[in-house]
Amino acid sequence: MHATTQPASAPLPHDVPAGVDPNEIGRLLVRCPDQPGIVAAVSRFLFECGANIVASDQYTTDPDGGVFLLRAVIHLPDLMSERDSLEQGFQEEVASQFEMSWHLAPAVEQKRVALMVSRYDHCALDLLWRAQRGQIPMNIGVVISNHSDLADPVRGFGVPYVHIPVTADTKAEAEEHQLELLRGNFDLVVLARYMQILSGSFLEQVGCPVINIHHSFLPAFAGANPYARAKDRGVKLIGATAHYATVDLDEGPIIEQDTIRATHSDTASDLERRGADVERTVLARAVDWHCNDRIARLDKSTVVF
Amino acid sequence: MHATTQPASAPLPHDVPAGVDPNEIGRLLVRCPDQPGIVAAVSRFLFECGANIVASDQYTTDPDGGVFLLRAVIHLPDLMSERDSLEQGFQEEVASQFEMSWHLAPAVEQKRVALMVSRYDHCALDLLWRAQRGQIPMNIGVVISNHSDLADPVRGFGVPYVHIPVTADTKAEAEEHQLELLRGNFDLVVLARYMQILSGSFLEQVGCPVINIHHSFLPAFAGANPYARAKDRGVKLIGATAHYATVDLDEGPIIEQDTIRATHSDTASDLERRGADVERTVLARAVDWHCNDRIARLDKSTVVF
Amino acid sequence: MHATTQPASAPLPHDVPAGVDPNEIGRLLVRCPDQPGIVAAVSRFLFECGANIVASDQYTTDPDGGVFLLRAVIHLPDLMSERDSLEQGFQEEVASQFEMSWHLAPAVEQKRVALMVSRYDHCALDLLWRAQRGQIPMNIGVVISNHSDLADPVRGFGVPYVHIPVTADTKAEAEEHQLELLRGNFDLVVLARYMQILSGSFLEQVGCPVINIHHSFLPAFAGANPYARAKDRGVKLIGATAHYATVDLDEGPIIEQDTIRATHSDTASDLERRGADVERTVLARAVDWHCNDRIARLDKSTVVF
Amino acid sequence: MHATTQPASAPLPHDVPAGVDPNEIGRLLVRCPDQPGIVAAVSRFLFECGANIVASDQYTTDPDGGVFLLRAVIHLPDLMSERDSLEQGFQEEVASQFEMSWHLAPAVEQKRVALMVSRYDHCALDLLWRAQRGQIPMNIGVVISNHSDLADPVRGFGVPYVHIPVTADTKAEAEEHQLELLRGNFDLVVLARYMQILSGSFLEQVGCPVINIHHSFLPAFAGANPYARAKDRGVKLIGATAHYATVDLDEGPIIEQDTIRATHSDTASDLERRGADVERTVLARAVDWHCNDRIARLDKSTVVF
Repeated sequence: MHATTQPASAPLPHDVPAGVDPNEIGRLLVRCPDQPGIVAAVSRFLFECGANIVASDQYTTDPDGGVFLLRAVIHLPDLMSERDSLEQGFQEEVASQFEMSWHLAPAVEQKRVALMVSRYDHCALDLLWRAQRGQIPMNIGVVISNHSDLADPVRGFGVPYVHIPVTADTKAEAEEHQLELLRGNFDLVVLARYMQILSGSFLEQVGCPVINIHHSFLPAFAGANPYARAKDRGVKLIGATAHYATVDLDEGPIIEQDTIRATHSDTASDLERRGADVERTVLARAVDWHCNDRIARLDKSTVVF
Repeated sequence: MHATTQPASAPLPHDVPAGVDPNEIGRLLVRCPDQPGIVAAVSRFLFECGANIVASDQYTTDPDGGVFLLRAVIHLPDLMSERDSLEQGFQEEVASQFEMSWHLAPAVEQKRVALMVSRYDHCALDLLWRAQRGQIPMNIGVVISNHSDLADPVRGFGVPYVHIPVTADTKAEAEEHQLELLRGNFDLVVLARYMQILSGSFLEQVGCPVINIHHSFLPAFAGANPYARAKDRGVKLIGATAHYATVDLDEGPIIEQDTIRATHSDTASDLERRGADVERTVLARAVDWHCNDRIARLDKSTVVF
Repeated sequence: MHATTQPASAPLPHDVPAGVDPNEIGRLLVRCPDQPGIVAAVSRFLFECGANIVASDQYTTDPDGGVFLLRAVIHLPDLMSERDSLEQGFQEEVASQFEMSWHLAPAVEQKRVALMVSRYDHCALDLLWRAQRGQIPMNIGVVISNHSDLADPVRGFGVPYVHIPVTADTKAEAEEHQLELLRGNFDLVVLARYMQILSGSFLEQVGCPVINIHHSFLPAFAGANPYARAKDRGVKLIGATAHYATVDLDEGPIIEQDTIRATHSDTASDLERRGADVERTVLARAVDWHCNDRIARLDKSTVVF
Repeated sequence: MHATTQPASAPLPHDVPAGVDPNEIGRLLVRCPDQPGIVAAVSRFLFECGANIVASDQYTTDPDGGVFLLRAVIHLPDLMSERDSLEQGFQEEVASQFEMSWHLAPAVEQKRVALMVSRYDHCALDLLWRAQRGQIPMNIGVVISNHSDLADPVRGFGVPYVHIPVTADTKAEAEEHQLELLRGNFDLVVLARYMQILSGSFLEQVGCPVINIHHSFLPAFAGANPYARAKDRGVKLIGATAHYATVDLDEGPIIEQDTIRATHSDTASDLERRGADVERTVLARAVDWHCNDRIARLDKSTVVF
């Protein structure tokens, strides 16, 4: 209720300093065995290419023989035109020497994302809305559901909705159908309260990371019906956990968690209603970080820069 | 990602115990000068009417000459048919004796709500979602905006969108137009990031409470551009405040506030993006509590039961 | 760094309104099978005794055949002199009719508390500080430890420190020694990071409630070494849980929990250091609520008024 | 209540990886005008000295002409013996080229800290306790107070307590007395609820940074009696702010803030009691970060690495 001018334009991609052309910003992600001299080699290479380091984070799991991880935001006026030669040079002059796996991601390139959802709408609609307003740099290309309930609101965002029913008998067939849509087409699949267990075969074949939201603070209440079990146990906090999906259900690397207070007077239904707000917030943060190349996945955990 | 049955039906109204018909639940709100015997008189009356007290909260601003406030949730099988006689009896036998102002609100009666919004969509859409899901017991009957931007998404919810432009010259006329729509038709007006200052005359004539969301933790950063000023001051927390609108801008009784952490690396634009999540959550809680008759308004503050 | 007058006197007991003599304030705790008319009967009795209800909370586990719980703060000028007759009258006129178990606790009566601790000092010292300041209404009468480390700081508070070593061979004997000190002498035993498992026999014989602090957000990481396991699992939150001790370790009714954020860069040692702050805060809240008669214990959970 | 072995030894200094001798760890703090090549030059110099970068954080206020800040944790086996030559080399080969102000702080060197306190003990005792258990790497060398109340508990920690009364008439003289104790002897002065306003002259002459704790979430409720004013305004959150003291009271660069929820039933006295927990936690974090060289002070704000 204050008279101010509102910007009508979309928000800038993250990591882009004020006044800088987003096309000039890239993110360099590096992973290699830790040893002395990595930062010196990377930063010298970038300097000699004319790239300025705008921000930088690093982590080593163990300075003595561990894994070294680096995320640097670089500013290079000719990033898009010089990208190929930059990448070739980095591989030859730096990466090969340190046995790096690495990736250069221009800030303007958006991740291609598919959502899978059942009937609860709060997580899926929240992600669609954030994508639409440019708040998370992603293109949601399809929503797949085992129910038809959310077809209208999803299509209202201009996003295709594909209804693939799943029963105990048709699960393998349904997953094959899902894989036809997903394989090769997406950089990320988000299970936005998708209430079917995906097979190990699906996770192997889908060809990109899968993020799931679980409606408890893992490892507490892994498995089904966490709110009812939380009520039964009488906990004073409920929570939600976003994690990469792995074959071991609810055991995947955790990306983000949060909790809110509960009291004796909250029914299981109250917990479900109030928990929904935590779920969508936690999932949105996890997807945002993934789409901004902020997450490095370790064996059983994550590094979030 | 767990195989569970999902309820397709709408959530129950709040305050309704499991297994109870919502038509049998009512909320009794009482305000009067504090003195001994109030609870005894109220509870005796309810007992003799066959009403069970399911939950009860009370507060006194000062046991010696202050204001006594009570909110009781009652269970009465014939609530809807006996409502008139119950109200008449309560007035005669209890309320008149203690100079009470009071109100009985059946749990199934939903508040009629009007939203006013400018161009930021996050608060308005969040309330529309919650209303659609039955998560907040309200009927949003109209959205009024001084811009046309949000017409499509609002109408996608089946809610009328009325565009009333406002300029410095036409403000009085615009408010008159708004009042024609609002006066007598609504129980609550919500300013869901409405970026125009409403006149004292408007607030007097609108005939129902008005809730505003301010994008700072009041009393810090009252007025315009709170995120930019928060960045400038270097605070380590940003927040949002929902309050009843009064003629003294940002001075109305506070209903709910929350904060999230900020760091030196957050730009003003980051603060705005991250703060939007707090704004919509804080506003939704305030509207939820209002629509469930949980708020008693004092002169400069609120009691939230 | 502001020139203000500081009160040198001790803080008032909780629940005492400003300007009221603490000797005139009592807390009435009631538990009985739920049925209509309880509040009417209680409030009428109090009114007829001249007692004013300053604050009141109630909860029913199920309006249809559940347990009804009530906590009322009452103001009665002659509370201390009329206590006996008030109690007798309440039993005869109200409690017997509703099969109540109940208790009247004057606000000025402090709980007698014993602490048990091993070598970590943060929880025990924090409770000693709070008792010394009058911030929690309790008299800590003894600290029992299986180590001698904390003798000096504890005795600095004027509180006896009893060192009872425990080995696998002497555990039964040590518990017998502990029970000699505790039995009949205390209203509450607090395990303030006491790193020995108490036997079921001890819990039965000690004759008062026992509150334990566990350094994780239960039910996650029940058992030993929760911080190391939290690090191993890669959680993004760590927490602490205060609960009543029962024979089933870490399964007792939860009183309070809280969490703080953790990141990939926190070592297990960092988690332990940062978690210590949560532990002492959570434990202090639980002890405070217990000492102010705010907790009703159900079978597997608690009601905190 | 779990049988585990407890370490009796002091915690390691922060920033020291497991298994590394703390004498081999140093922190390099750098500040200079931003320009390309800084990280390359610093990291190359360190590599050539045989120093490994264990962790690194950087920030620029503006990539185009702003201030560049860097904090690197380095591992160098001969750090203590080679410190002089390392510093000389860094100045000549790197710092002079980029107009750096910089500092190398060995992890084992503890800051010399003086506390100033009035009568509230919670902040001062908490810092003394954290210093004693080695949780914050600091040596508290003196506690100065304008009251005698806390002499015994402070001296119980083995720390000198100097009582310097202050009245309106003797303030200048008292400050002179304080300065005699402080000037040249300390790296940090902490106002742990010191309820006197220090003069600009004092702050100029004391010769080291001064950290103050204010019992509100600034900029809300700057000045005196924040809890009473918070109660009066009806806020739903209260908080605390740690900041560097400057001549403009409560306007100094903010280091850390936090909030907790308040309700209508909290009296001003309740807010004070509950807020005390936030105050000591916020102050402890700020002092911890300062003593670990994590804070870079800008004109009106701070960077916390």
